[in-house]
Amino acid sequence: MLLDATVRDVLRAEGSATFVTNGPDGPHLVATWQSYLDILDDETLAFPAGGYRETEENLARDAKVQMVIADKHGPSEKAIGFRLTGTAEVQSGQALHERMKAKYPWCRGVVVMHVAKVERILG
Amino acid sequence: MLLDATVRDVLRAEGSATFVTNGPDGPHLVATWQSYLDILDDETLAFPAGGYRETEENLARDAKVQMVIADKHGPSEKAIGFRLTGTAEVQSGQALHERMKAKYPWCRGVVVMHVAKVERILG
Repeated sequence: MLLDATVRDVLRAEGSATFVTNGPDGPHLVATWQSYLDILDDETLAFPAGGYRETEENLARDAKVQMVIADKHGPSEKAIGFRLTGTAEVQSGQALHERMKAKYPWCRGVVVMHVAKVERILG
Repeated sequence: MLLDATVRDVLRAEGSATFVTNGPDGPHLVATWQSYLDILDDETLAFPAGGYRETEENLARDAKVQMVIADKHGPSEKAIGFRLTGTAEVQSGQALHERMKAKYPWCRGVVVMHVAKVERILG
């Protein structure tokens, strides 16, 4: 299980979830909020896409993505953060997008991230 | 002034500060904490380097860096976040490193980031 109890604990804290795609001119960094991340299953996250147009173009060429999530004051007051590595795509007009719209009416799509690796990077 | 009052307000909140370098195999994402960011002047940040060995190698080849800072519950309860774009280097053994060691005895160097652009990316 990649998105295990420790990762889920971090996601219960609010904070930015910053992620990077690989563009023709190098890395492109954007972010969402940890509270916007929906855990679809033990290795899949989904979150609303408002803008992310450059991110979507990059993903169409190279689906690889990395994300950092973190919590400075986690359970037992332990600072903790993870780098999630995997692939992602933007889905629009499908069931997941319709479901996401109920909570985020402004979302033009959903970013679906398939997590392949979880590394602890912050303490 | 790039690191203006609004940016400084965000940095007063705790949270992860995630930054990316461009490596031979694509983007490499790491993070620090916003409270670890020292504002040297209106366009320069410094923060302790614990690991960051791959980051340092990447910076030696390509100094370009992007960072996201954010605060979900800013002044007036407004969610706000910024992408900082610029260049960075890791300094070790110099005055700034010695000064940083007093607060972070574990730091093997200091990342100095020269901010060239500030964009609001989260609301």
